[in-house]
Formats: sequence, structure tokens, C-alpha cells
Amino acid sequence: MKEEIPARIAALRDYMRGEGINAAIFPQTDPHQSEYIADHWQVRRWLSGFTGSAGALVVTLDKAFVWADSRYWLQAADQLKDTGIGVMEEGKPETPTIEDWLCSALKSGDTVGIDGMVFSIIATQQLAHQLAAKGINLRVNFNPMEVIWNDRPALPLEKIFIHEEKYAGESCTSKIAKILADAAKQGANAAFISDLAEIAWTLNIRSTDVESNPVVTSFLYIAQNGTTLFVDEAKLTPEVVDYLAANGVKTASYTAVKDFLAALPSSAKVLVAPAMTAGAVAAALGDKLIAGTSPIAMLKGCKNDVQIQGVRKAMERDGVALVKSFMEIEKALATGTKITEMDVADILTKHRSAQPLYFDQSFDTIAGYAAHGAIVHYSANPQTNVVIQPENLLLIDSGASYLDGTTDITRTITLGNPTPQQKSDFTLVMKGHIALAEAVYPEGTRGAQLDALARINLWKHGLSYLHGTGHGVGHFLNVHEGPQRIHITENPTPLMPGMITSDEPGLYRSGEYGIRCENLILTVPAMTTEFGRFLKFEVLTLFPFDLRLFDTAIMTDGEIKWVNDYHTTVRERLLPLLNSEEQAWLNKKTEPLTRS
Amino acid sequence: MKEEIPARIAALRDYMRGEGINAAIFPQTDPHQSEYIADHWQVRRWLSGFTGSAGALVVTLDKAFVWADSRYWLQAADQLKDTGIGVMEEGKPETPTIEDWLCSALKSGDTVGIDGMVFSIIATQQLAHQLAAKGINLRVNFNPMEVIWNDRPALPLEKIFIHEEKYAGESCTSKIAKILADAAKQGANAAFISDLAEIAWTLNIRSTDVESNPVVTSFLYIAQNGTTLFVDEAKLTPEVVDYLAANGVKTASYTAVKDFLAALPSSAKVLVAPAMTAGAVAAALGDKLIAGTSPIAMLKGCKNDVQIQGVRKAMERDGVALVKSFMEIEKALATGTKITEMDVADILTKHRSAQPLYFDQSFDTIAGYAAHGAIVHYSANPQTNVVIQPENLLLIDSGASYLDGTTDITRTITLGNPTPQQKSDFTLVMKGHIALAEAVYPEGTRGAQLDALARINLWKHGLSYLHGTGHGVGHFLNVHEGPQRIHITENPTPLMPGMITSDEPGLYRSGEYGIRCENLILTVPAMTTEFGRFLKFEVLTLFPFDLRLFDTAIMTDGEIKWVNDYHTTVRERLLPLLNSEEQAWLNKKTEPLTRS
Repeated sequence: MKEEIPARIAALRDYMRGEGINAAIFPQTDPHQSEYIADHWQVRRWLSGFTGSAGALVVTLDKAFVWADSRYWLQAADQLKDTGIGVMEEGKPETPTIEDWLCSALKSGDTVGIDGMVFSIIATQQLAHQLAAKGINLRVNFNPMEVIWNDRPALPLEKIFIHEEKYAGESCTSKIAKILADAAKQGANAAFISDLAEIAWTLNIRSTDVESNPVVTSFLYIAQNGTTLFVDEAKLTPEVVDYLAANGVKTASYTAVKDFLAALPSSAKVLVAPAMTAGAVAAALGDKLIAGTSPIAMLKGCKNDVQIQGVRKAMERDGVALVKSFMEIEKALATGTKITEMDVADILTKHRSAQPLYFDQSFDTIAGYAAHGAIVHYSANPQTNVVIQPENLLLIDSGASYLDGTTDITRTITLGNPTPQQKSDFTLVMKGHIALAEAVYPEGTRGAQLDALARINLWKHGLSYLHGTGHGVGHFLNVHEGPQRIHITENPTPLMPGMITSDEPGLYRSGEYGIRCENLILTVPAMTTEFGRFLKFEVLTLFPFDLRLFDTAIMTDGEIKWVNDYHTTVRERLLPLLNSEEQAWLNKKTEPLTRS
Repeated sequence: MKEEIPARIAALRDYMRGEGINAAIFPQTDPHQSEYIADHWQVRRWLSGFTGSAGALVVTLDKAFVWADSRYWLQAADQLKDTGIGVMEEGKPETPTIEDWLCSALKSGDTVGIDGMVFSIIATQQLAHQLAAKGINLRVNFNPMEVIWNDRPALPLEKIFIHEEKYAGESCTSKIAKILADAAKQGANAAFISDLAEIAWTLNIRSTDVESNPVVTSFLYIAQNGTTLFVDEAKLTPEVVDYLAANGVKTASYTAVKDFLAALPSSAKVLVAPAMTAGAVAAALGDKLIAGTSPIAMLKGCKNDVQIQGVRKAMERDGVALVKSFMEIEKALATGTKITEMDVADILTKHRSAQPLYFDQSFDTIAGYAAHGAIVHYSANPQTNVVIQPENLLLIDSGASYLDGTTDITRTITLGNPTPQQKSDFTLVMKGHIALAEAVYPEGTRGAQLDALARINLWKHGLSYLHGTGHGVGHFLNVHEGPQRIHITENPTPLMPGMITSDEPGLYRSGEYGIRCENLILTVPAMTTEFGRFLKFEVLTLFPFDLRLFDTAIMTDGEIKWVNDYHTTVRERLLPLLNSEEQAWLNKKTEPLTRS
């Protein structure tokens, strides 16, 4: 593919010249501001060959760069080598923002072109604002892909299915009522939703539109006088049409959304989340637009009891699949059977897909052997795939979507003779993992307040990781979701009971190995005292950490106890579901950690 | 005083009726957005009798409330009892903001009156914005005090003096050049400064305008073609006039500032910090105003080497004074000499003022015995003053301004037979104090990221404190300064080398006792690794913590070592400055802590 990139960029530049465009921006998203996107919207990947899940491409008539965040610095440099496209390392102080770079690279009177369908209202406004200050024009309907991408994939046409209430725990009628009540508080009598996960959650519908993200490509308009789902007719089955109708939801064509919004009467006051709604769509609303906060993000983020019980059950099945998978991997290495990173991913999928209620993997498995483990969002492909040797570390980050819940787990294991540095690094990461898992915090606490608990032990040794410590996790939906997160940067959303978040500190030694230790943790009440209500985490994930990598000399008694208590829970929950050989394996993997 | 309050509020309401004003807001600040203010601006105190250092008074024709933050909930309730003025407990979820309360208490067409000189640009805009949405008018030149406050104190007229460069470490010419360079980066060719500490720092001048805050009541206009200080002529000495003139600084009348700004040519582009500049002043600038960030806050916050060396020396003298003071307090209690909270404050001032370079206390001493210690910003007065008994806890928060630096220290001591709960509470507070003092963090880390380190051990026991963990500290200037802080709420300013911040977690058991443990800590480089540059804290304050209050059973080895290492430093630095009796006392107070 790499060899085709220069021709594609050349074709783009020809088209830009013809249209009087001096620079074009291609973000990695879709008209729904999705993080993971259908092939139809993989414009940046097609133009540049860079496959990361984030990072915009900017092309001028003589320069081109991908802005990649720290997860992708190495991967972008590798994939963009010799294409004529450079890498801008986002997050480094010396790296300009796209807007700043454009303002310095272009001159007054030049024109920047974007597709207003893939820029949010806020992104469009900010871009326009910064460019205007330099006298640079912004054209918001520049879509060269319609001309130069000949074999562009169609929009997703897979069928929609219903996510049954026995898993979802709440009817779509009830959810719609809550959404309208919240919209009313914000001065609106309707809400327009672009976020695909929010639409899927609201209507209890799913499809397979985006790899590993069971969403439905659509827009949703919710009003007192009725709800309309804008979706391609080919995706509808008679059962789904009946189900929607029974819940008061009409359907209309996906492409009819702008006309529909434009034709709404002036009495409509439509709540829109400006960061999640395309500027080109919102423009159709005009004065009817009420900028506010999506009512759904918080409702969806706080799982109900049915969902929580489902996830607990899904974690048990996932734990069983992990036991079977890690046993098979160990056996292969012990017997000298050749096994590659891609084999590891296949083994996990084989055992998970044999479990009841399995639907799909929740993201592409990351099996990073040795130096590959230091590439944070590495995913093996035939070009990079390596045979795993009985030495160094193997990092496996994987997960599954079950109908009753979504899993996401990272384990790092030694394949033989761990070095003192590997043990020290692993233990420092685990000290952070444990400190976060053990945290107790007052109601109202935000993830950014707790983030340093997971980092401070690494920082004291001059070590650091640049990714977030925790992301929200959907329920049989996207494995990355908001509104909360545990991250260095501020996010005003407090951690609320029912929220599921990952706990995944790491450490990456470029060219050597990567370490990440990840469980999912559920916010639950801890206690109420004269000082207020306090919350804590319940660990949901059920699978042991590698005992051989702990350096107990740098652990407190409390940390050792946490590991042993956690492993006791793993044993108690999984043993009844395992055969005797698996039980023996798990018993050995969860033996008490003691000071040597 | 309390008995006069209803008459004052009645006079205010008469005046409001005459002017057609339905509600008036009196914030606790001055035209410089100061936290501590001269008597002339103590409008809220005069009207309400509430003496807290923060909290606005709102008066309608039939209701009146003070909005008090958690530090002042108890004090406000006490001081406002029977005055007809209620307390709004800020920080509780159910407490409305002033704007929300006004919108519900008033009706469309009503008018709110404020003095635009004591509302920042941002505060004025936000208020106007919220009121306008309800059809409520805002009058920004409502100043009833000129009529109803007959014996209002004059503006401060004390003389200005020069803060010598041997203490300040940088000339005002050098500082002005840096300020103009920063203003230019923000698109301005001038800067207008209202913040009194920023003006004093810039010009290396001081006065005694605000109790414990050696600032100069003035405005400052800095431009390429000259600098003008707006100040009352009575405050100028010939020496100061010469000094200012030699540095290119002209003077003009304090009250001439608005006319001066209005008369600036349209080519002037004047940088203004909207949160720190009065709306009524800024209005005079019109289109010449460039809203931006004060260039001074960060320059002033990061102390230079001369200042840092000065503070280290001031801490030694402060430590000596504290040894003498605590010895005297202990002796009085041991010998049965009657001693009150106010006596404690006097003893501290006596010993501090005997030290070289002493100028003033840096704030009113808080000596809170037993239950008074639970009133976070308690300051004893003749009505509340109590005799200290040889039991329970005594919390002493005090500090001094020396010409070479400012101190601020809190110690909590037992006066006899500490209870297990007191020891546990004290030790949990100290665990947080130590965790913050020992932190190592990457460049760019903000205080809000580190705040939870000081709280997590309390939270795990269902305990909490509601004030900030750390505030910036000025250099022979205000004891509270920005731009950094260590607090639950987000503040985008990173902790930078040279910043001095307090480390003061606490715990307050209402009706029983209060605990706070405070040192000042200096941000310094820690190390540089392949993962970046890391910073840490140097502890500046030199005085022991009470050994009798530690419960070593709940301390880690590392925490015990920290206490012993710190006490070793205190000994090494202070012993050479003490007489033999004091040395014996300090040696005993810094004996190694061991597990019992």
C-alpha cells in the first residue's frame, strides 16, 4: 500500500489546485465524531497509509504531515517513511498545533478546505477563528474524496438487531423520557444525537458497522411529539421496524437528516452537544439549536444493576477463556511449538468465541512481544508479526463484547528469566495499579484527581507513561467511552456509582519491552461518615497477574495483601467453571505472594 | 457591633428604594481584586459584621445573606446570628450561586446594583449575562456607601518604601522589560496592572496599606514609551520619587486612572487580565483593551536565586523564634501560668519581631485551642479568647514577613494525654503531608494532580478536609498568591522550579479539635531521564512536628524515615543559632521516632 501513497497525495493536490485550496485537513473521524470508524470514513488511512486510531492528516500543495499522539509516534514514523508525509509528534512542547502550523505555513488570502461533516461544531468554530485572525479563508464543504477515491467502500449496510432488555436493563421508552426531561432542564424541547454509541444505547439496538464497535450508523432526533431514527433502509429488518414503531420511533433515510432539521418549525428548541455534532449538520438547525451537554453520556456511563450483574458474569466467562488461552500459549512455548503474535490473538478469539453470549472482540488484540510491547497501540500484522521466544516479556491487551457486557484486560507475562529491571518496572507499574484500585474518594471526585496515584511510584524513579490511566467502558458497546476518564488532563466529570473504568498504568522501554497491567473497575459506594459520602472501586476483571514478575522487596505489606486477596477472588470465582487441569494451573498462578 | 447591623441594613434598604434598586451585592474585595483589603474597602464587614476574609453579602428589600465558604460556615453563623442576615453555605450541592439565587428571588424588570470598581471584568460580564436571561437589569455604578457609611476610613496613606535589590534579586527595569516582552507576545504594546502584589513586585516597592500585606494601593500602566504609577501623592517620599524616576516610572494621582486610560491613543494595545481588573476601570480602555494573561503572575511566582536564598535564611530566623515561642508556651502550661489563645499570638509576635529583617506578621495568627482549632480560619478576639488547659490539642498557624522572605507554618501540639483518635487523626494528616512533600513529578504537572496524595489516607478512613492543600506564597509580599495552587479544583498552572507553595492538609472535628500540619515547599529539579525532566520539593520550613502525636503503628518505614530526616535537618540548621537551653529543648523535640 505504501507505494500508492505518493500518487494519492499527488491526485489530491491536483484536485486542491483546481479548487483553489491551499491546505486540506483530514481528521480521523466520521460525521458522528467516532473514535473508531467504518471503512467508508477511513479517508486519512487511505490517503496516508497510517493506520493509527487517531491523528489528522494535513496536506498543503508542497507539504504533508500526520499529527500523531505519543501512542503512535513510532508507528507513524514507520508507516509514513518514504511516503513524503512527515510526523508531527503531538504532546511535545515544540510541536505546533495544526492551526498554528497552518497559520505559519499559509499566507493571508489562502484557503483551507475541510469536509464540514467530519468537524464538530466546536472544531469548526475554533479553526475558523484562528485562521480568520491571519486572514486565511475556510471552506467547509471541500470533499475531494468523492472524486479521487474511486473504490471508496460504501456506508455500512449490515442489519440492525435488538439488544434485549434482559441485558440492557432499561427500555428505550424509559431512556427517551429521561433524555427529554434532561433536555428540558437545559431549555430544550428536543435533542439531536449524532454519537453512535449514544444512539445504540438509547434505542437498545446494535449492528456491526464499525469493527469491534457494535454501533448503528445513524442520527437520532428525540422530541416530545416523537422520535426519528435516520438510518439506511437496507439496515432495517421487519422485526426492528416493528420494535421501533412499538416504542414510538419513526425511521427516515440517513441522508435526509439535514433537510429534516432545516424543516423543523421555529418552535423546536433542539439540544445539541457541540463537541459531538458535525458543524455541517448543526448548521441546518440555525436558531433552533440549543448548545448544551448530551443528556445521554452520564445516563449511559452509570450502568444499572442488570448491566452490572451482566458484566460480572461476562468477566467470569472471559476469565475462563483467558485461562484456556494463556495455558495454550504457555504450552506452545514449553513444547517448542512455533507461536507468533498473531497466533496469540487467534488463540484468544478461539477461546472467547466458544463462550456463551460472545459477540465479537471489543478491539483488535494487542499481543506485543519484547520491543513490540513498547509500541503502545501495536497490533501485529503480517509485516510485523514475530515468533515469540522463551525469553523477555509479552504484553497482551485484549477484550470481548458479550451480550451482557464488554471486557478489556491487559496482562504482561515473562517468558523466562526476568531481569531485575523487568521485575522492578513491573512492580512499580503494579504499585500504581493497586493504589488506584484501592482508592477511596469523596463523591464528586474527578479522575484527574486520582490519576497521580497510579503514577507517583514510577515518577519517583524517573519513569513515566504518556497515555491515560483509565477510560470509561461501554456495556456491549464501545470499549472506549466517556464521560469520565482517569487522565493527567482535567475532565470535569466526577466518578459516579455504576461507572466502569479501566485501571491501566504502564511503562514502555523503547526497543526493549512494554509493560501494562489493566483491570476494569466499577465505582461503588464505600461509606458515609460525618465528612460525607465516599466511593471506592470494585475490581471486575478476573485473571491473575504474573507472580514471577513481582519484586516483593519494593512492595508494602498492603500491596502484597492486595495481590493475594485479588488472586483469592479470581480463584473463588473461576475455579468452579474450570476442568481439573485448568484448576491446577490457576491454583499455581494464584499462589500467595510472600516476601523472599 | 452586632446590634448596629440591622440599622445599617435598614439604611441601605432605604437608599436602595430611593434609587430603584431591588438587590445589591457587596463582594469582599477592592478595585484590585485583593483577597485582603484595606479598611476603606471593608464594606461587607461594616454592613454585616461578618469578618471572614471571603464571602459576598447580598441584600434585597426583604432578605439578606452572606455566601460563606466552608472555612467560615461556623464563624458566619455565629457572627450573623440575630442580625437578620442569613448564611449561604457555599460548596454544599444544595446552595445556589448568588446569580441563581437572585434570578429566583427577583422578577423580570427588577434591578441589581453593584459598584463596578469591585467587580472584575469577568464577574461583571457573567453577572450581566445571567441576569439578562431573566430580564433583570444590572446597574454597575451603584455605590450607597458614599452616602450611608459616614465614618468610612480613608484610603491608605502610609509612605512607600523601596524593597532593595539585594533582597528582591532583580531590578524593576529588568522586570518591566520582561513584562513588555510577554505583552508583545500576546499582541499588546502595553500592560495595565491592577493587582497590588504584582505592582509591588514589579517596581520593588512596598507599603503597609493592607494588614499583613505590604502592598501599595495603586494602578500601574506599563508601555514601551514609559511607565506610570497611579498612587496617592501623600504616599510618596522624595527618595521614592527619585527611585521611580531613575527607573523611568512617572507618577499620577490614584483617582486619575480612568481618565488616563480613556485618553490613550487608539494605537495603544493594552494587555489586561480580565479576572483581576475592575470592570469599571477596563471600560475606560474601550477598543484598546487586549484581554490576556498577566505576564507578572508567573514571573513573580517563580522566585530567583536571591529570593530563594533569602527565604532559606528567613526560615532559620523564623525557626529560632518558633523554638523560643513554643518553649515559652510549654513553660507557662507546665508552671500553671494562665495563658490564652491571644497570649500565644503575642508570644509569637514578640519573638519573631526580635529577629533581624522582621517586618510584620504575614497574617493574623490562628491559635485555636480544642474546639476552636476546628474553625478553619479562627482568629481569637476578646469575645472568643479562651484560657488554654493542659489537655486536648492546640493548633497554631502563623507566619512573618521578613525583608528577605515570607513564612507560613502550622503546627498542632498535644497539651496532655492525646487520645488514640487524636493520634490516629494527626498521623493520617501527616501521612498526606509527607506524601506531598516526597512527591516527584514530571515537568508540567499541575497542583490538582498532586492534591489527592495529601488526602487519600484520610479518605480511606472516611475523613476529609475541604480547604486547599497548598497555596502559593509571596516573597516579602502576600502570604497567599498565585498562579499555582494544590487544590481539589483544576488550575492550569504547572508547578515550576522556584515556586513556593504550602503543604497543609488538615482534619477538623467540629466541637472537638482541629489538626493542620503545614510547611512551605519549594519546587526544584529532581532528575532528567529518558522519560523527561522531573521536579520535586525542597522543604523550606524548619520546626519539629509534635512527636507525641505520631502513631507509628499506621506509618510506613518510609514515613518514619521522612520525619526523622526532616527533624535532623531542623536540628542541623537551627542548633547553631540557639542557646544551650534551647538546644536541649530542640534535641528532645527531634529525637528519632521509632516503632513502639
